[in-house]
Amino acid sequence: MMRPEQFDRLFHALADPYRRNMVEQLSRGPATVSELAEPIAIALPSALKHLKVLEDGGLVRSEKAGRVRTYRMRPDALTSVAQWVRQREAQMNKAFDRLVEAMTETPERDD
Amino acid sequence: MMRPEQFDRLFHALADPYRRNMVEQLSRGPATVSELAEPIAIALPSALKHLKVLEDGGLVRSEKAGRVRTYRMRPDALTSVAQWVRQREAQMNKAFDRLVEAMTETPERDD
Repeated sequence: MMRPEQFDRLFHALADPYRRNMVEQLSRGPATVSELAEPIAIALPSALKHLKVLEDGGLVRSEKAGRVRTYRMRPDALTSVAQWVRQREAQMNKAFDRLVEAMTETPERDD
Repeated sequence: MMRPEQFDRLFHALADPYRRNMVEQLSRGPATVSELAEPIAIALPSALKHLKVLEDGGLVRSEKAGRVRTYRMRPDALTSVAQWVRQREAQMNKAFDRLVEAMTETPERDD
């Protein structure tokens, strides 16, 4: 299981439309800072700040080849989010089933 | 599709260990403020602030019956998160398949 602080950083990283846009782009394949900044029309320094938050959140990593830095998604980036959500949904379904069961239960038996 | 600001608030609400603990509790069934505050050992005013953030994020709702306010999960609370994550994972898998395909493709045919 992921440490709580890491989980905080992961969710915090996703709580911004520019950063979600970057994640959407990077899910389709690696990209450079300029390629990531262009469609959302932000300046490079601002894009780099957002990418730092995404790196801290464990969502992306980067590599420098010559003068070009390329960003890509970590393959397991969203696994823990998916897992956490699935667990909550399973619990909610169980709680709902228990409720329905309690409501449809025969209140008493005479036989 | 959810509006970006609403999505920001949803992810922001989940970027805190106390609030995630509350969501975990509420996924098992409705609870009062005191019931939610007790296991994480925080004061009621602090618990109420966290619950307000969860309400703003569209995760929980509350009802007052007499003097007791009860919190519960919204049934569709996590659907949009699950959906967004699933879409990204599908894109990443597609990108990975394209990569494998490109790497295993016969570079030239002689026959």
